[in-house]
Amino acid sequence: MRAITQKSFGDPHVLDVTDLPRPEPLPSEVLVRVHAAGVNPIDAAVRSGAFPLIGQPPFVLGWDISGVVEEVVPGVNRFRPGDEVFGMPFFPRAGSGYAEYVAVPSRQLARKPAALDHLQAAALPLAGLTAWQSLVDTARIEPGRRVLIHGGGGGVGHLAVQIAKAHGAHVITTARADKHDFVRGLGADEAVDYRSTDFSEAVRDVDVVLDTVGGDYGRRSIPVLRPGGQLVTAVDRTDTALRAAVESAGRRFAGITVEPDHVGLEALADLAAAARLTPHVGHALPLADAAEAHVLVESGRTRGKIVLTL
Amino acid sequence: MRAITQKSFGDPHVLDVTDLPRPEPLPSEVLVRVHAAGVNPIDAAVRSGAFPLIGQPPFVLGWDISGVVEEVVPGVNRFRPGDEVFGMPFFPRAGSGYAEYVAVPSRQLARKPAALDHLQAAALPLAGLTAWQSLVDTARIEPGRRVLIHGGGGGVGHLAVQIAKAHGAHVITTARADKHDFVRGLGADEAVDYRSTDFSEAVRDVDVVLDTVGGDYGRRSIPVLRPGGQLVTAVDRTDTALRAAVESAGRRFAGITVEPDHVGLEALADLAAAARLTPHVGHALPLADAAEAHVLVESGRTRGKIVLTL
Repeated sequence: MRAITQKSFGDPHVLDVTDLPRPEPLPSEVLVRVHAAGVNPIDAAVRSGAFPLIGQPPFVLGWDISGVVEEVVPGVNRFRPGDEVFGMPFFPRAGSGYAEYVAVPSRQLARKPAALDHLQAAALPLAGLTAWQSLVDTARIEPGRRVLIHGGGGGVGHLAVQIAKAHGAHVITTARADKHDFVRGLGADEAVDYRSTDFSEAVRDVDVVLDTVGGDYGRRSIPVLRPGGQLVTAVDRTDTALRAAVESAGRRFAGITVEPDHVGLEALADLAAAARLTPHVGHALPLADAAEAHVLVESGRTRGKIVLTL
Repeated sequence: MRAITQKSFGDPHVLDVTDLPRPEPLPSEVLVRVHAAGVNPIDAAVRSGAFPLIGQPPFVLGWDISGVVEEVVPGVNRFRPGDEVFGMPFFPRAGSGYAEYVAVPSRQLARKPAALDHLQAAALPLAGLTAWQSLVDTARIEPGRRVLIHGGGGGVGHLAVQIAKAHGAHVITTARADKHDFVRGLGADEAVDYRSTDFSEAVRDVDVVLDTVGGDYGRRSIPVLRPGGQLVTAVDRTDTALRAAVESAGRRFAGITVEPDHVGLEALADLAAAARLTPHVGHALPLADAAEAHVLVESGRTRGKIVLTL
C-alpha cells in the first residue's frame, strides 16, 4: 500500500511516498481503507523531532482518518465491511494515518455521519475531541454559561465555538477582524478583534476560557474569569507558573491532552448529523503532497483544516 | 520496579521476577501503582506461545489491573494522584500488568468502586467487559428476555449471570451440580446440570445464548434459541461453520472479542457499587508466584478468578 514515511527527523521534505505492507488487524480491530487523513500541527512537531512522541524514524505519521471498513476481524461487532468510519487511532502512540490502510481498535472509531464527506470527517477527530474533552468532559459547560474561546477561527477553535453554541452557551471568541464573519457564522455571539481590542480588559464574568492560542493568552485570561471560573488550556498544559497564577487568583486551571474515545466521536458525529457542527476544510491535497501540507500547517496562516486525500 | 517477565515461550516456569525500569507515562496517560493483577486464561495462551498476540519474548504479561494513581501527566483531568482505579490497558497489545507500575491511557481506566477491594477489581475488567460487551453492547438484552449462559460458574459466566440479572433478564445457566448454589446466589433463575441433563433438549425459547464454554456447546445451542434469537460466543468467534449453521437455522450469530472501554468499566463499577455485581476471587497469590497462578489457570478446575497481589 502507499504510505508516507520519513527516514529521519527534519523539515517537510523528509516526507516521502513509499510502499509498505498492509497492516494486519489484531483481534478487536478493523482494517480501514483510508479516504482522507487530517494533518494537524502535532504531526509537524513529531516529523521535525521537536516532539519525539513516537520514537525514532522510520515511522508513518498521522492520526486523523476517515474511510471505509475493508475487513473486520471475527469477534468485532460494532462495524461491517463497507461501513464509513472516522477516528484518531492510537494517539499519542503511532497512529500511521498517512497510509492507504490502517488497523484500528473498533472502539476508537465511530460511524461517519452522512452529513460529512470523508475530507470533513478526517478534519474532525483530533481537533474536535480536543474541543469536546475541554468544554464537555472537563469544563462541563451548561446552557447559559459564558464561554470565551481564544482562536475561534482556528482548527480547534472553530469546532469549539460550534460545540459551545450547541450546548447553549453564550460564546465569545477572539479572532482576527477578517475572520469575524466566519466565527459569527459558526454561532459566536461576540467576536473580539485581538489586534484592536485588549480582551483582558474588554471581557468579564466568563465561566470558562478555552485557550487554543497560548503565549500570554492564559495569564491575560485570569481577569476575564469570574471567581471560581475555569481556564482550560489546550496549549500550556505543563505551565505550572500559569496554574499557580490562576489558582492564587481563585480561578481553576486545567490543561488538556486529547485522547481517543468513541463516546466523544459519537457525540461529534451526532452534532454533525444535526447540522450543528461542520469542520471547515481549507486545503485538500493528494497524499503525495504531504510535504506541502506540512509547509502549510507550519505556516500557521491557513484558514480551515488541512486534509490529505487518498 | 518488580515485574514478571519471560525470556522464551514455554510452560509456567518461564515466568520470572525481574527488576525493570518504571514505565514513563505519555501525554494522556497516568502511572498506576498496581495493587493487584488479574490472571486470565489468555495470559497462559500468550505465555506458552499458543497465541503469540504480543510478539516475541521478553515481555511482561497481564492486562487486568487495580491500583492507585501515582502520577498524572499534565493534560490529564480524569484522575488525580491517590485515586483508586481499575482497567485492562492496551488489550490486545502488550498491557504489562504483572508489574508494580503500569502507564495507562486515562480513558482506559475507571474509578474503582469502594464496594470492591483491589483483588476483586483486578478480577473484573477482562472477564466483566467480555460479559458486558456480549450481553449489553452486542445482544442488547432487555428486561424479560430469556438468556442462557453457558458456564455460569466460570470467570466470565459468573459475571454474565449477574449482569443479565441486573438487566432484568430471566437467567438460565449451565453449571456443574456442585456450583448450583453458587449460580443461584448470583441470581440465576434456573440452573441446568450439564452432566445429568441435555440442555439442548431441556431449554427452549431463549432470546440470547452466551457461550463461554465452546466445544459442541455452540451447535447444541441452536435449537434452544427462538427464531431470530442470537448466539453470542466468546470462544468460537472464528468458527465460520458454526456461524453458517446458526444463520441457516434462522438464528443470529456474533463472535465477541473483548476491548478496552471506559464506558463499560464505568457501568461495571456502577453495578458493583449498587451491590449487583461481585467478582468472585478464588485464589490470591503474591506476584512472585505468577508461575503457580498459571498452573492454576491452566488447570481449568479453579473456582473463582485468580489474582496476583503486589
